[in-house]
Amino acid sequence: MSTLKTVRIVEAADLDDIATGGAILGTGGGGDPYVGKLMAKEAIRRHGPVRLVDVEGFDDDALIAPVCMMGAPTVMTEKLPQGEEIVVALRKLEKFIGRKVDGLLCGEAGGINSTTPFVAAAATGLPLIDGDGMGRAFPELQMTTFGMCGVSATPMALADDKGNCVVLETIDNRWTERLARSCTVDMGGSALLAFYPMDGAKAKQSTVRGTLSLCAALGKTLRQARARHDDPVEAIRAALSAEIIFNGRVRDVLRRTVGGFARGEADIEGLDAFKGHRLRLAFQNEFLIAERDGETLVTTPDMISLLEAETGAPVTADAMRYGVRVAALAFPCAAAWRTLKGLELVGPRYFGYDLDYRAFSPA
Amino acid sequence: MSTLKTVRIVEAADLDDIATGGAILGTGGGGDPYVGKLMAKEAIRRHGPVRLVDVEGFDDDALIAPVCMMGAPTVMTEKLPQGEEIVVALRKLEKFIGRKVDGLLCGEAGGINSTTPFVAAAATGLPLIDGDGMGRAFPELQMTTFGMCGVSATPMALADDKGNCVVLETIDNRWTERLARSCTVDMGGSALLAFYPMDGAKAKQSTVRGTLSLCAALGKTLRQARARHDDPVEAIRAALSAEIIFNGRVRDVLRRTVGGFARGEADIEGLDAFKGHRLRLAFQNEFLIAERDGETLVTTPDMISLLEAETGAPVTADAMRYGVRVAALAFPCAAAWRTLKGLELVGPRYFGYDLDYRAFSPA
Repeated sequence: MSTLKTVRIVEAADLDDIATGGAILGTGGGGDPYVGKLMAKEAIRRHGPVRLVDVEGFDDDALIAPVCMMGAPTVMTEKLPQGEEIVVALRKLEKFIGRKVDGLLCGEAGGINSTTPFVAAAATGLPLIDGDGMGRAFPELQMTTFGMCGVSATPMALADDKGNCVVLETIDNRWTERLARSCTVDMGGSALLAFYPMDGAKAKQSTVRGTLSLCAALGKTLRQARARHDDPVEAIRAALSAEIIFNGRVRDVLRRTVGGFARGEADIEGLDAFKGHRLRLAFQNEFLIAERDGETLVTTPDMISLLEAETGAPVTADAMRYGVRVAALAFPCAAAWRTLKGLELVGPRYFGYDLDYRAFSPA
Repeated sequence: MSTLKTVRIVEAADLDDIATGGAILGTGGGGDPYVGKLMAKEAIRRHGPVRLVDVEGFDDDALIAPVCMMGAPTVMTEKLPQGEEIVVALRKLEKFIGRKVDGLLCGEAGGINSTTPFVAAAATGLPLIDGDGMGRAFPELQMTTFGMCGVSATPMALADDKGNCVVLETIDNRWTERLARSCTVDMGGSALLAFYPMDGAKAKQSTVRGTLSLCAALGKTLRQARARHDDPVEAIRAALSAEIIFNGRVRDVLRRTVGGFARGEADIEGLDAFKGHRLRLAFQNEFLIAERDGETLVTTPDMISLLEAETGAPVTADAMRYGVRVAALAFPCAAAWRTLKGLELVGPRYFGYDLDYRAFSPA
């Protein structure tokens, strides 16, 4: 562990940027950044700062565990953890495995899930790896680069705000999703998890690198653009080498919370350069498909991020409301997803869309 | 452990009687006795006989674990365990607790659940306590005399036929029921459990005594009555000091499998001494309420058992069919249930019936 390289020391004040950046990469899902940063700031104030580290510094036989919050974003935003249930989940996992974890990892990028690992890291003093298992957010827990690299999601521990705990050991990661989803629904719609325990070698192989640094950089970019009265949307677009695929006003959102997911469709009416055009976004927690004037433009796992036109603030699928002025950005997903194995896990057909994946290249 | 007193050695051939007797005490639930005896006989043939013991012989600090099958009887009868998942559940529980179990216990009386503990006992060589946690069958897993005596249902391990395992630790036994039920539904409608781990002192305090001996005696009574061409219903009635509250023919059964339970109502048309009368039985896995000509006659937790009029074979709620000739027997429940605490757990109001419990006394 002596070779562990610190990327940065994360203080409470840094969490604003990380939560905002997380919500941008969260592509509509991954939870509300306001909620995420409150939880993490509180934990860092209480326990001290978090050491963000490079995964390469871990020994091959170190024990690494991702931690996150599971649930419909609609619920996650309203039903906050009581405190440090994520630590309860981590300790249960350690007890079940019979070994202490050496480093924490982020499951997905998102307004909440880029910040929940900071709660666990602050409370335990464990280093947090600068990376995650998606490079974005996805709705189901088998949808990770960890799983794609052969890591089992179990043993996995879930903890709720009431004090209930569940440990799962399943035959595959689809079964983990199925059982964990039911438990999460029973637990009131959200739960804290420690899962995908893996050794250092697997973590190096399977982690999407630099995700939390990227979150921090995106948040900082947005903050500075606002301070300078620059166009915040353009600043984010440039930082991500993304394309602005639409500007408009939300006209209609159809939304249901089904089996622990927020599913739906949004209809956006064009403004400015896009006047007279329409954008339809399909989402299941995250934005998955963008269709402009009936033409499919972006397909999962490529990334669709919605920003408030004036402030550049990320708009989650859950927070979309009639009349909100938005810009839609699209950019390529992590390279690992653009493989046959990746598209089986997170391509359009998995989500029930009768579409092939078409790799998006920003104009 | 040297003081452990053997009640009897149970061989494969004894399982016919035990399964039949279990189904009589199962009061309509607890699974099909044919399925139960097949599983247990196979295990005893493979591993050797089971030692049935008196709970009194265990040290106060011995570790005792009940084992059973959970699920809608409709499913339990059609979806058999692959083999010894019940042993998997037991081993997971032991691993989680970090200690070997000293004795097994039966969760409930029933066609399946009086026999599943024999599978675990045969495969592990552990002694099986002559008793159970209900003295009958009930649909939800917090409904035990163990729970009434303050034993937590968790840590609890569930195993399915595919190889999935879940370990629960909950804040109370209602939460155990809720989470375990969802997992069981996900697992295909049935699962094998090891739960309510307790020490020897608690087992002595909370166990309904002699249940498995009673099952064996009832099965034997029925078998001998048939061999002697005696009236089998009358033989069982006498053995249980029960009252025959009805003779008739099943006219109609309304039945749905909801959330892992078989719920419904049966309408029985009187014959012989009951000609011109009607019996309605309400059930949720088990028979819970008997109403004759609109008058409530028997209420849960008192026992209602349905026997085929001609053969005396127990008829489960699941197996009731139009036209079947039946006799309905009623008899008092285990004394522990006839308390305020007991009725809170298993009285008519818990099940949603707008009725007070009325203690049944056989005429």
